[in-house]
Amino acid sequence: MAEGIVIGVDDLERQVAAIFSDAGLTRLQADCVARVIVAGERDACKSHGIYRIEGCLRTVAAEKVDPKAVPELADDGTAVIRVDAKGAFSPAAFAMGAPVLAQRAKELGLAALVINSCTHFSALWPEIEVLTDQGLAAMAMCPSYSSVAPTGGNAALLGTSPIAFGWPRPDRPPYVFDIATSVVARGEIELHRRSGKPMPEGWAIDKAGAPTTDPEAALQGALLPFGGHKGSAISTMIELLAGAMIGDLTSPEAMDYLGDMSLLPHHGELVLAFSPEKFSASRTDDPFQRAEMLLEAIIGQGARLPSQRRFAAREISLRDGISLSTKEIDSLERLRQDALRIGKTG
Amino acid sequence: MAEGIVIGVDDLERQVAAIFSDAGLTRLQADCVARVIVAGERDACKSHGIYRIEGCLRTVAAEKVDPKAVPELADDGTAVIRVDAKGAFSPAAFAMGAPVLAQRAKELGLAALVINSCTHFSALWPEIEVLTDQGLAAMAMCPSYSSVAPTGGNAALLGTSPIAFGWPRPDRPPYVFDIATSVVARGEIELHRRSGKPMPEGWAIDKAGAPTTDPEAALQGALLPFGGHKGSAISTMIELLAGAMIGDLTSPEAMDYLGDMSLLPHHGELVLAFSPEKFSASRTDDPFQRAEMLLEAIIGQGARLPSQRRFAAREISLRDGISLSTKEIDSLERLRQDALRIGKTG
Repeated sequence: MAEGIVIGVDDLERQVAAIFSDAGLTRLQADCVARVIVAGERDACKSHGIYRIEGCLRTVAAEKVDPKAVPELADDGTAVIRVDAKGAFSPAAFAMGAPVLAQRAKELGLAALVINSCTHFSALWPEIEVLTDQGLAAMAMCPSYSSVAPTGGNAALLGTSPIAFGWPRPDRPPYVFDIATSVVARGEIELHRRSGKPMPEGWAIDKAGAPTTDPEAALQGALLPFGGHKGSAISTMIELLAGAMIGDLTSPEAMDYLGDMSLLPHHGELVLAFSPEKFSASRTDDPFQRAEMLLEAIIGQGARLPSQRRFAAREISLRDGISLSTKEIDSLERLRQDALRIGKTG
Repeated sequence: MAEGIVIGVDDLERQVAAIFSDAGLTRLQADCVARVIVAGERDACKSHGIYRIEGCLRTVAAEKVDPKAVPELADDGTAVIRVDAKGAFSPAAFAMGAPVLAQRAKELGLAALVINSCTHFSALWPEIEVLTDQGLAAMAMCPSYSSVAPTGGNAALLGTSPIAFGWPRPDRPPYVFDIATSVVARGEIELHRRSGKPMPEGWAIDKAGAPTTDPEAALQGALLPFGGHKGSAISTMIELLAGAMIGDLTSPEAMDYLGDMSLLPHHGELVLAFSPEKFSASRTDDPFQRAEMLLEAIIGQGARLPSQRRFAAREISLRDGISLSTKEIDSLERLRQDALRIGKTG
């Protein structure tokens, strides 16, 4: 690398946490948001890396997140553990609930963590990996903002709502996927608009509800769900389970609540954890060995498991550090100044 | 209707159950299989109706299901309830486990039913509806036979493994979907082969792993998952949760076990039940009302909710009875003779 620096993962976490502390976040909130952002940068997931700091700070400045809120955990001993984020960023609420969720899943075989009233900020895979690290299988989902039309519909209603899943693998990184339920992210359409290229068919509809390959028309219309009516059904399921069921906002409600998509959304999240030991307790075969047979067969066909690219990047980052360009280092310095200003006025 | 008869739902259930009794099934197994088959016929889901009796009988005749097996329920008071089908058809095992699952979900908020060692026969939606009838949300999934290549792969490995979900709606039929994770069912390709028509792109690959629109080549190759790598990931999740995790066969193992797809597969199933009351207990809003806002908005766009056609057909069947053609009535008579023969030699 000609220019820039190489920085250790822990060092970058401290720097990013300091930015959020300066912006007025509690230590817990600052550390948890920083950990998620640096995990993205570490795994060469640039779209979830330090690039995201600016949007988080903008949400703090707009007072659409409570930087001082302390999430509250409620546990009545059942299979459902609740954390009321009280308007904090979601990662602090997850960090508070995850150990209880893991413990309960190990006891009961299956448990759920409900996060309510958070400003949602995090890819789901870092949370999934917290649970696979404990030997648990895990599923997570949450609404987002209305930007996807249901199949057969004509306007944005559903979110690009993600669903993620993880399975622990002995002595290697877990099987993990984290997918948006739209065909593509809104950012992909934006990239086509900037480069003046038409989009492939099937990505979006215009504001009249007609199929379009014009990115400009698409941005005024709606994205389409992945996989046609099947993806549309799965996206609806996410709204029902991780919105309505947990007594929190669905994607259209999250959109109404803030009015636009430039700030991070306010809603909840649902995380399920499964203990393979408990689920297979009465059986003679080892569930992990059986899973390896399947996963090795997939790899044996030359297919790639999801997240492999992330894990490869992580290995390098943990060994050699994270490479940041001069431009990125400058942006961190600028963000720190912004944070200090936000913290003072906050 | 010019020819044929109209028969009440209960009457048809008795007739179908009698066929399975004649074939040697226990009363419980015969009644449960009949209920599922008649539910398909009642809902104008012909592909899951009386047309399926023949395949069930063939599996009995081949001694690949135990018609006398009595499923056994194991309940240690945790969130995981297990039914060992002991080689019986799956519907008897589900019928035994469902009330305990529903009760446990109401107590703990969330519970799972594991069905092991069954000959799997049933669409998942009739099971989902048993739980939505109790005011619960439900998710079900199971492997099938290897016939789908993972995205990026070159040969059949994953199943067309279905995933189904239901949400209870006050005073109207539930929101229910039940989708296979392949782009299309194998039967669709067979229909194209018979009519000599090429298939659309993206349905299948040939035995060399290359994309094909030739149905003949596709039948010797593999189906593709719905929604590209996202559907492939969801299909893999089903193999892991409802195969490996529950200590039962994955789709490639189910294929190895019987050697071909002409008989019903032997594997397990996973059903999750969620209590919306428990999940939203600490919240002020009614989860069912919030869900209605979303579902009404989907309908308001002119989009159809999944299963609406089934519910409309059901309304007619329950009011007027089920119409069967002369040919279908003849086939029932013929199947009864087959069943008697199978029952005698069994």
